[in-house]
Amino acid sequence: MSPVHTHPVIGQAPKARARSRRGTAASLAPEPKAEERVGAGLIEELSINTIRTLSIDAVQQADSGHPGTPMALAPLVYTLWQDFLRFDPEDAIWPNRDRFVLSIGHASMLLYSMLYLTGVKAVNAEYERPGEPAVTLEDIKRFREIGSKCPGHPEYRLTTGVETTTGPLGQGCATSVGMAIAGDWLAKRFNRPRFTMFNYSVYTLCGDGDMMEGVASEAASLAGHLMLGNLCWIYDSNRVTIEGHTDITFSEDVATRFLAYGWNVLRVGDANDTERIAQAIERFRRTNDVPTLIIVESHIGYGSPHKHDTSAAHGEPLGEEEVRLAKRSYGWPEDAKFLVPDGVREHFHAGIGRRGAKLRKAWASMLESYRAKYPELAKELEQMQRRELPDGWDADLPSFPADAKGLATRDSSAKVLNAIAPRYPWLVGGSADLAPSTKTRLTFEQAGDFEADTYGGRNFHFGIREHAMGAILNGLALCKLRPYGSTFLTFSDYMKPPMRLSALMQLPVTFIFSHDSIGLGQDGPTHQPVEQLIALRSIPGLVTLRPADANEVVEAWRVIIGHARQPACLVLSRQALPTLDRKHYASAKGVARGAYVMADAEHGKPEVILIGTGSEVAICAEAYEVLLRDGVAARLVSMPSWELFEQQSEAYRDSVLPPEVTARVSVEAGSVIGWDRYVGDGGAKIGMHTFGSSAPLKDLLHKYGFTLQDVVDAAMKQIERARQKA
Amino acid sequence: MSPVHTHPVIGQAPKARARSRRGTAASLAPEPKAEERVGAGLIEELSINTIRTLSIDAVQQADSGHPGTPMALAPLVYTLWQDFLRFDPEDAIWPNRDRFVLSIGHASMLLYSMLYLTGVKAVNAEYERPGEPAVTLEDIKRFREIGSKCPGHPEYRLTTGVETTTGPLGQGCATSVGMAIAGDWLAKRFNRPRFTMFNYSVYTLCGDGDMMEGVASEAASLAGHLMLGNLCWIYDSNRVTIEGHTDITFSEDVATRFLAYGWNVLRVGDANDTERIAQAIERFRRTNDVPTLIIVESHIGYGSPHKHDTSAAHGEPLGEEEVRLAKRSYGWPEDAKFLVPDGVREHFHAGIGRRGAKLRKAWASMLESYRAKYPELAKELEQMQRRELPDGWDADLPSFPADAKGLATRDSSAKVLNAIAPRYPWLVGGSADLAPSTKTRLTFEQAGDFEADTYGGRNFHFGIREHAMGAILNGLALCKLRPYGSTFLTFSDYMKPPMRLSALMQLPVTFIFSHDSIGLGQDGPTHQPVEQLIALRSIPGLVTLRPADANEVVEAWRVIIGHARQPACLVLSRQALPTLDRKHYASAKGVARGAYVMADAEHGKPEVILIGTGSEVAICAEAYEVLLRDGVAARLVSMPSWELFEQQSEAYRDSVLPPEVTARVSVEAGSVIGWDRYVGDGGAKIGMHTFGSSAPLKDLLHKYGFTLQDVVDAAMKQIERARQKA
Repeated sequence: MSPVHTHPVIGQAPKARARSRRGTAASLAPEPKAEERVGAGLIEELSINTIRTLSIDAVQQADSGHPGTPMALAPLVYTLWQDFLRFDPEDAIWPNRDRFVLSIGHASMLLYSMLYLTGVKAVNAEYERPGEPAVTLEDIKRFREIGSKCPGHPEYRLTTGVETTTGPLGQGCATSVGMAIAGDWLAKRFNRPRFTMFNYSVYTLCGDGDMMEGVASEAASLAGHLMLGNLCWIYDSNRVTIEGHTDITFSEDVATRFLAYGWNVLRVGDANDTERIAQAIERFRRTNDVPTLIIVESHIGYGSPHKHDTSAAHGEPLGEEEVRLAKRSYGWPEDAKFLVPDGVREHFHAGIGRRGAKLRKAWASMLESYRAKYPELAKELEQMQRRELPDGWDADLPSFPADAKGLATRDSSAKVLNAIAPRYPWLVGGSADLAPSTKTRLTFEQAGDFEADTYGGRNFHFGIREHAMGAILNGLALCKLRPYGSTFLTFSDYMKPPMRLSALMQLPVTFIFSHDSIGLGQDGPTHQPVEQLIALRSIPGLVTLRPADANEVVEAWRVIIGHARQPACLVLSRQALPTLDRKHYASAKGVARGAYVMADAEHGKPEVILIGTGSEVAICAEAYEVLLRDGVAARLVSMPSWELFEQQSEAYRDSVLPPEVTARVSVEAGSVIGWDRYVGDGGAKIGMHTFGSSAPLKDLLHKYGFTLQDVVDAAMKQIERARQKA
Repeated sequence: MSPVHTHPVIGQAPKARARSRRGTAASLAPEPKAEERVGAGLIEELSINTIRTLSIDAVQQADSGHPGTPMALAPLVYTLWQDFLRFDPEDAIWPNRDRFVLSIGHASMLLYSMLYLTGVKAVNAEYERPGEPAVTLEDIKRFREIGSKCPGHPEYRLTTGVETTTGPLGQGCATSVGMAIAGDWLAKRFNRPRFTMFNYSVYTLCGDGDMMEGVASEAASLAGHLMLGNLCWIYDSNRVTIEGHTDITFSEDVATRFLAYGWNVLRVGDANDTERIAQAIERFRRTNDVPTLIIVESHIGYGSPHKHDTSAAHGEPLGEEEVRLAKRSYGWPEDAKFLVPDGVREHFHAGIGRRGAKLRKAWASMLESYRAKYPELAKELEQMQRRELPDGWDADLPSFPADAKGLATRDSSAKVLNAIAPRYPWLVGGSADLAPSTKTRLTFEQAGDFEADTYGGRNFHFGIREHAMGAILNGLALCKLRPYGSTFLTFSDYMKPPMRLSALMQLPVTFIFSHDSIGLGQDGPTHQPVEQLIALRSIPGLVTLRPADANEVVEAWRVIIGHARQPACLVLSRQALPTLDRKHYASAKGVARGAYVMADAEHGKPEVILIGTGSEVAICAEAYEVLLRDGVAARLVSMPSWELFEQQSEAYRDSVLPPEVTARVSVEAGSVIGWDRYVGDGGAKIGMHTFGSSAPLKDLLHKYGFTLQDVVDAAMKQIERARQKA
């Protein structure tokens, strides 16, 4: 299946379409000097080789990095940006810009070179000085150094112009599907006759790794199904991976696979053939009804006489001598480092810069008229862009009356979600084929489904593709939608990589996980989460909430929606939980603080503290009542979120869990790991120590020790221990 | 892309190939009674409908489960087992049996019905009574009840005849690729002229979910690459998922996709057409050079007049009335429950039973001759099957001299692995395209690569497919190989679902994760694990080891290899770590106990305890020396494995971490969550609280507080705190 490589290799004379092979290896003679060539009409070649040599030099200087792909793909990226990308370096977050996703994040110098050469201006006051260049030549010289704007892999927020954090393979591809979906959704929502507010394209640069990762396969299948005509993946087929030639593990016919997904597939036989590249991109732009895959055959380490087409060019510096040889093959001054010939930046300014500015300004002026004609929509558009909440989003939040029978938190969450969504038009989401079980469907009339012929719908069907769902949610959030996605808690394992990226990028994505413990019963241990809660809690920057009843669900949603820059997990029960009587117990408002005293001993002087989360709060409450009846001074604490609790002052934390009260019992139907922090030395942790099993819930609670008696016994033992110690 | 459904639907008269449509809906008249039909030559239909009705009745009785798929696929499973599967119910673990994998684990009643009807005998003394039936009719009546041999999803070990635990979608498919690889590997290793010890086939029943999950895509791509002619996936295309018709999210051309992977693709237009099914399976059996996908168009809930072809038939009982109607449509007595007509079990006995016994006995007698002719190979084969270790497997384990510069634990692990592997012929493995970085390649001459033309090779190239790698490792282990797989620790996130199954199934799989912290440096936060260690530690039954130096690596491997029924993670550094002087420090043998005192205060009376893991032990050792010099009584504890430590007696644990010594510092370049357990209330936890960043290691250690001074300061503060408290 290996394609026949008929492309010119280094040292051979350019053949037929020589004119179009901008940036190929020129004569080996180093003259005329790079700077002198500008006048000779070779500015394109000069620009391409500037990208290449900046990348080579940065990696060499850092003594770490990936030079081979920038060397191969500079002509492609040059052509895409200079001649096609609708992107204004002066305003890199203009909402209708084309998105460029570098799914091959290790080739980060390709992107940094472009950000520098096109003069992208910084916008993010937190990490940058707005208005200053996002990337300077000095930043490039500090590639991979501490505090650099040019880290090893591109990081969203840190560097303006980076559309998404990439590096873990497959993620960029799948995220870009979310961006394309967002584009179609935004177009449907905001475009009006003569007002094309949104029609951006998404270009994604992928590699062999992306083609192999399952997450990209899932996303490609869905993109084909949704007929995302605004999506273009460009596959750098260099046939080299870290372990060697792709022949050792990857011999499928990628083109045919994508045809099967319903994509249009184009092929460019030589990554240096900018004319063909341009033709392919033009073909994509004329294709509106299906996504496009452009397969570009390239030579990793192009220009390096000893390392091209080898894995040695992938992940380490070329070495000083090889750098010289590569530069010589480009006709570049061998001793020049970080050379940017005069005219190159001006050339980009005249190309992408001028085109981008014109487009952006036209859009801005269209927005003015739009604001006049459609003030409500314009307001919405602008609120979205600023990640503001719509006015009155919480006006319909319900309050649930006490109810001993109660309802599952997945059900109360459905009610809350459906109370918020009508007032929050860009709150959209769905499930990985479990919406009837996770109860995440928007049921009001106007909600609709997002399908190829109904891009305005708000219910997404991700299919049985949890991993792609996670990445797509990130893509939606990057384009300023407010997305949520759902599956069973145990299957959060399938989507951990994009959840991690969500946290790293600080995106307001909501992950809804129902069936949150052995409480799901008979489906058994494959479906019963045990270790998932702690896995989620340990992701930095992610907030996990496990509400105890319907009113805690309301408050959990309030916390989640209130966070503009933090992903959250909402962890919900399958089984019904009593709606606690808030006249008797403290208000659920305490959810916002992560943990709160729900009921207390007389005079606030407990001898033992019962700490529960989610479905186990009800049993703690029962135990509290029994202890109370028996004259035992107990405190009942609901602790829906460790992360929120940790954010509170020490004084507050000590007020909930007074250090002097060492008799403590935690009850959570998940792994006990981590609970020592809250029960302290010698405290009791009722939880799971093994996998669960398939049986009705009642039997499982008995088997694994979650009965009322278990909790009461543990509390009494704790009191005894504390008394003995005192 | 939706295929045209031209199959007969319920109520229509069977058409052309009527004779071959065994098990289709017969006349609606309930006569003649099921029992009476036996003599009428309808035993095949009777058997098929027995599978159906047992499944329906079990789900109805449990009031929970998935009836629709067993109703649809009974004819398929009947045909496969009765006419093809080389499987002996009397000895369900005969090594050369065909493997049947129910990737659609929710359709578990299909499998339990077959185990009961074919009379599979139990073999697992831990959960069963060997020699007794693996599944009785009573077990089926207790489907999904506590302690039942018939849990919601099939569980390996619990029920003989279940080849692998399934339920999480895609896993069965990918695991079956590992089984097929194992078959080819075993054949290459053990087959000799006239001794075909291994030539089993692997049949996998997949659904729409499997086709959508990325892990199955990854595995299918690799299976095609490896030209696994012994692998047959049967895809139940019923076009219904939980959210509705697959048209809402899944419109790709599956057949073409698999052709692109290099598979042979067959289609059967009607799941009731047993003749066509048989033809397709025969085609598969004649195809030796590529894997086969048989797409079977089916009707979920077949026979249920109101629920067939709907998602209502998927995951809930039909309801009493619908059960009657379905039975009526099969010509079944409507009131009979759990009816197994006379003759049905006898029919299976005469089919699969007799055929399987003959094959197995022939194999056993061949093994006798083989043992005579190839005693060494026979011994190896039998040791493998019993999961015994080869004699002298550890004879060449190295010992590393003290070395201040030292080496990365990924490098020492490479040496250890290459010292074990030549003496452990069925220790095989590879990497998800990172072998040069994880250093997991077997480098000795005979090791070789596992490729389509070299099935005896021991180095596997999984490609950039971590998720499939994890599942394939499970498949290899299920076929008694001793597999390992490697990637970077951060990418363990990509393969968590199969790791979980590995733990649930108690399989001796070794997961090797290098680049285990910010210690990897410049690749930045996407590549730097933070929360992964705690995520792994929280999986029940999985042992995680993070050795501190080369000699701890030796002992870690000794522990891992010694476990016949436990998966393990070996967590390794990218950066060099000093090889500690074991004349000065305690022997690394302590690794086996999870944590051990490496160096102590005089008289074993420390005032402060420093606890490190992996790369942070060296810095703790430095701090220990500084404290010693300053006259501070410190203890140095290396804690490579929480899980192993927890398995020790309380006395041992208290001897390492005496309760009276409350001044404690843990140092680990990962999330601090969970460390409270070992440092106690108020102890110091030096670790990560955020994601890392891209920079040289030195700078990161400084930035995140892992310098010598940080540790010494923390220790002094702890001492002060303890003194104040005392």
